[in-house]
Amino acid sequence: MVHAGNFRQNVPRASLGAIVDADFDLAKSAGRELEIDHCFSSLEEALERASFDAVCIASPTFTHRDLVTAAAREGKHILCEKPMAITLEEADEMIESAHTAQVSLQMGFMRRFDPVFSAAKEHIDGGEIGSPMIVRSLTRGPGLPPRWACDMRTSNGMLAEVNSHDFDTIRWLAGSEYERIHAEANTLKCFDLKEEFPDFYDNAVVTLRMKKGSLGIIDGSCPVGYGYDARAEVLGDEGVMFIGDLEHTAVITCTKSTGLVASNFPGWRERFREAYIAEARHFVECIIDEKAPAVTGEDGRRALEGVLAANRSIRTGKPVNLPLEGD
Amino acid sequence: MVHAGNFRQNVPRASLGAIVDADFDLAKSAGRELEIDHCFSSLEEALERASFDAVCIASPTFTHRDLVTAAAREGKHILCEKPMAITLEEADEMIESAHTAQVSLQMGFMRRFDPVFSAAKEHIDGGEIGSPMIVRSLTRGPGLPPRWACDMRTSNGMLAEVNSHDFDTIRWLAGSEYERIHAEANTLKCFDLKEEFPDFYDNAVVTLRMKKGSLGIIDGSCPVGYGYDARAEVLGDEGVMFIGDLEHTAVITCTKSTGLVASNFPGWRERFREAYIAEARHFVECIIDEKAPAVTGEDGRRALEGVLAANRSIRTGKPVNLPLEGD
Amino acid sequence: MVHAGNFRQNVPRASLGAIVDADFDLAKSAGRELEIDHCFSSLEEALERASFDAVCIASPTFTHRDLVTAAAREGKHILCEKPMAITLEEADEMIESAHTAQVSLQMGFMRRFDPVFSAAKEHIDGGEIGSPMIVRSLTRGPGLPPRWACDMRTSNGMLAEVNSHDFDTIRWLAGSEYERIHAEANTLKCFDLKEEFPDFYDNAVVTLRMKKGSLGIIDGSCPVGYGYDARAEVLGDEGVMFIGDLEHTAVITCTKSTGLVASNFPGWRERFREAYIAEARHFVECIIDEKAPAVTGEDGRRALEGVLAANRSIRTGKPVNLPLEGD
Amino acid sequence: MVHAGNFRQNVPRASLGAIVDADFDLAKSAGRELEIDHCFSSLEEALERASFDAVCIASPTFTHRDLVTAAAREGKHILCEKPMAITLEEADEMIESAHTAQVSLQMGFMRRFDPVFSAAKEHIDGGEIGSPMIVRSLTRGPGLPPRWACDMRTSNGMLAEVNSHDFDTIRWLAGSEYERIHAEANTLKCFDLKEEFPDFYDNAVVTLRMKKGSLGIIDGSCPVGYGYDARAEVLGDEGVMFIGDLEHTAVITCTKSTGLVASNFPGWRERFREAYIAEARHFVECIIDEKAPAVTGEDGRRALEGVLAANRSIRTGKPVNLPLEGD
Repeated sequence: MVHAGNFRQNVPRASLGAIVDADFDLAKSAGRELEIDHCFSSLEEALERASFDAVCIASPTFTHRDLVTAAAREGKHILCEKPMAITLEEADEMIESAHTAQVSLQMGFMRRFDPVFSAAKEHIDGGEIGSPMIVRSLTRGPGLPPRWACDMRTSNGMLAEVNSHDFDTIRWLAGSEYERIHAEANTLKCFDLKEEFPDFYDNAVVTLRMKKGSLGIIDGSCPVGYGYDARAEVLGDEGVMFIGDLEHTAVITCTKSTGLVASNFPGWRERFREAYIAEARHFVECIIDEKAPAVTGEDGRRALEGVLAANRSIRTGKPVNLPLEGD
Repeated sequence: MVHAGNFRQNVPRASLGAIVDADFDLAKSAGRELEIDHCFSSLEEALERASFDAVCIASPTFTHRDLVTAAAREGKHILCEKPMAITLEEADEMIESAHTAQVSLQMGFMRRFDPVFSAAKEHIDGGEIGSPMIVRSLTRGPGLPPRWACDMRTSNGMLAEVNSHDFDTIRWLAGSEYERIHAEANTLKCFDLKEEFPDFYDNAVVTLRMKKGSLGIIDGSCPVGYGYDARAEVLGDEGVMFIGDLEHTAVITCTKSTGLVASNFPGWRERFREAYIAEARHFVECIIDEKAPAVTGEDGRRALEGVLAANRSIRTGKPVNLPLEGD
Repeated sequence: MVHAGNFRQNVPRASLGAIVDADFDLAKSAGRELEIDHCFSSLEEALERASFDAVCIASPTFTHRDLVTAAAREGKHILCEKPMAITLEEADEMIESAHTAQVSLQMGFMRRFDPVFSAAKEHIDGGEIGSPMIVRSLTRGPGLPPRWACDMRTSNGMLAEVNSHDFDTIRWLAGSEYERIHAEANTLKCFDLKEEFPDFYDNAVVTLRMKKGSLGIIDGSCPVGYGYDARAEVLGDEGVMFIGDLEHTAVITCTKSTGLVASNFPGWRERFREAYIAEARHFVECIIDEKAPAVTGEDGRRALEGVLAANRSIRTGKPVNLPLEGD
Repeated sequence: MVHAGNFRQNVPRASLGAIVDADFDLAKSAGRELEIDHCFSSLEEALERASFDAVCIASPTFTHRDLVTAAAREGKHILCEKPMAITLEEADEMIESAHTAQVSLQMGFMRRFDPVFSAAKEHIDGGEIGSPMIVRSLTRGPGLPPRWACDMRTSNGMLAEVNSHDFDTIRWLAGSEYERIHAEANTLKCFDLKEEFPDFYDNAVVTLRMKKGSLGIIDGSCPVGYGYDARAEVLGDEGVMFIGDLEHTAVITCTKSTGLVASNFPGWRERFREAYIAEARHFVECIIDEKAPAVTGEDGRRALEGVLAANRSIRTGKPVNLPLEGD
């Protein structure tokens, strides 16, 4: 719905053609809200019966491969939410299908379009802090994940669902690929989910060694009670950079009983509102202007490979070298 | 252009009908950029030859009275930029004309729609800091004002052109009307403008005593080299609140030669981008839903009265009681 | 006790000789705590019976003249708390007595020794923000003043007791003397004190016009519930400077129910702990090294004159020109 | 000299008895500055010829074992700088010698006495953010380490010399002991030191798994150009806490060419000035009041064990379980 609303209200060069949700009632209710008549319960049906140039896929991870390849076969351009897929084989198939059909395949790493993160990237590329030596990226979210995201078989777990962005951010800001990854994880809040899904974890720390020599740190935790938190810190050989903070609105109050108080971001919708709009506009502009998107299927595949390596490190207790061979 | 662009891109319930600028070439160039064919060099012409429901007036202050009354006569709803007018008589005439025509007259105090200021207002109304005792509001802008804004006869000077917002903010946040106003002003940068316009000043400090007893402080300065600055601070009998800050983007760098560095707002476009969009949406929603706007001609008149009192205090060196009688 | 403790613990070149308090039991209890045997209930007695080179006077304002002149007559160097005196005549007498006796008379404007304020002064003098155009200084304190400080006859009220520092700070940072002062004041919390002391006020806003053309703003409020607050802001013709903030300790927590929270300064002891130590060290060093102190009786007299002008403006409703003639 | 100066100026219950430095000229010059006559080039000599109750040891790590055991044999109380020793065997010997002699052995983890860190610890113990899940602690320093600190045989390298504090902080804030440690390190600045000392590294990231289940992150880098940086971040199951920041003095300036600028801490002397004083006072009070110090030899040994495990992980490329068996 975030994407659909943005395409409708904030992307003047695009119009919304159809809504698809496996739950047809949900599709219809979204359609009413967005004033769209064409509502379907499957992408196949939409591809057959409605007319449009591009699709935006925001369904559970385990459905991405089939949806992307189906859309590509029909010549539709694709904006696919992260994480890209469950396995590298799926990711390869998706990239191949888009390539064959000559359609755009853009991955939903919207942080690259966030005013804060993109300003930071510009500063780094401009040499303000020298060469990155240590890049830290973290994501913590307030909401309990849906059940399919707790099951490693349908989701690759928290590092995939929540921290995919951090894997992408570290590659992007460090300007280098993963060489070796180590991870520690533990369940410190959702003990009942751990019982049901033995591989489940709700806290993780990942160390990355990048090919060019820099080091990366990811820390993830979900759910966290205090709100949504996505920040990065880059130590370069000439300075340090802090990217993002927790403050939501620049209103600070101070009373005797509270001390100094500011509001923090309640969720990702508030934190990345502008980023999602910019991402959607970029998607449409790239299609119209026939340009390659700034975040590609290859980027999605790389982040997936990082997640898979970290999960393997958690399972085996050992660092994992990349590229992966047989997971 | 800020308004026109917003109505076109960010207000789905409205569409842009015509562009008017006394400089017809400018009107046409804006029309090309905004993909509008109907371009005129006078509102009269537009009223005659184009079809629309509402106008947005962003011309110099001394033109507001004629444009507003002309639009009202033709039954157009009106969003009028601040400051409202040059004299209270003009303001009264504008209010009366809108009342007679039963059209909406909304004043462009966009801070009331800014996420930061409106969150602050909610906190205050929710009692978080108790009753306001001292309200400080300031505006400092980077740009040299246009010549007509340096001439008191066509503009009422900096307190009108730059600090109108502060006069409105203090009334709004204090929840009270002006009782007495004192101002000191001086020219500390633009000595050549002072020579040309003897009443010119580029720095001012205004003290306000409000009817309910609270005190207000306005400080204005224009041009200031460092960027755009609009903040408020409210001291209540149970706490204090800071509204807005200078930080533009949440990226902080630190190097040996610079220390900790963040970017500040370069101008009002960046600081109040969201406020202008919300203001435009509110204007259109009020028209469609037949509601009174949140900021009315009466608010514009009050702020104007405050400005006139402050200018009189600067001239006479004495505090001025309100309401004004004969300026 | 703040001063006594600092001289004992933090000024290696000085030792504490005697304690004087009109309440002899208090003097003795302080003596026990500070391990000082010589305790007296009057300065006269101390001057007669104990041996020391200098005195630190922190008694109520209306006692300063007699204590300072008595100490000076005995050749003692003097650190005198602000505000200096009740009248300009008293101040003149104090300055004259120190001059005649050739003793040091240092005024207790400890902000000049605060690491934050003194760093700011250095930056300004270094030209970082150009020439000061508007200087704002504020002080708000948490505690209800003692009864003698509510009575204008024994104290000159809040602007003297609380905001003397701001009068000094504005002169110091603007590098200029007062030319004209206007003030508005009101009672918005302590309505019972207002009944007992008709001239009482607990909120005030002062506008200052300085001889070199810059403008000043003082805002004072006491008591304020939220803690102690002393900040300044200097707008120069090339930039702006913020001096001091509310954050007491660099620990920030964030939970769902609280948002982002930091602790603020509970009182002046915490805010200016280092400043008081530096002030005491400066006092002792100036005596030993026979240098003039950085803050003199003349500075105390100027601030007093500012306070008197502001109080006269409150009484008369008119701006007051300086220097004062007959109050 | 930091310790010596503090004991002399800021610890009223102690006095400085003698100065020892292997470089006798340095000892004498320090003695002149601190007004101490008793200067020696070895602790043995000082123990023989001067009279004192306690020693403060701030010499290179590889000398700690001999100095501590010698002082203990003579019944002197000991404040020993971190890191404690080169090997666990040395640490055990030091603990044993102090135990046998019944003298106090306090380790120089001064962060525990820092107002910021100790306020944070109180908040955590008070339950403000729930149980710690992830604790991050980092230290980055501006100065090139002395040569002996670049040699793993005489120092255990950067993780010992710079990041010992972080190992202690994580144990302290997490309230738990190390269970498993993994580290990645690299040389990204001092390529010439790497050539000379093959085990040298100037950047490291350490992941810790604590016995109670929480995770820890240490990141270290030295030298960094931008100044001194020591911060921590604790994610609890009910909130998050940020401990410390980079801002040195609460003065912020903004000009067009610089943006918003604040000063950062140039070095540890400025950042932990108060912590060192509080540490010295605690040491003396514990001796006089016959209490155990808050940071003991056992704490020093634990941090050393963490450092040794991290170094072993760097060498072997594998996580290391604790307690260590044979390094």
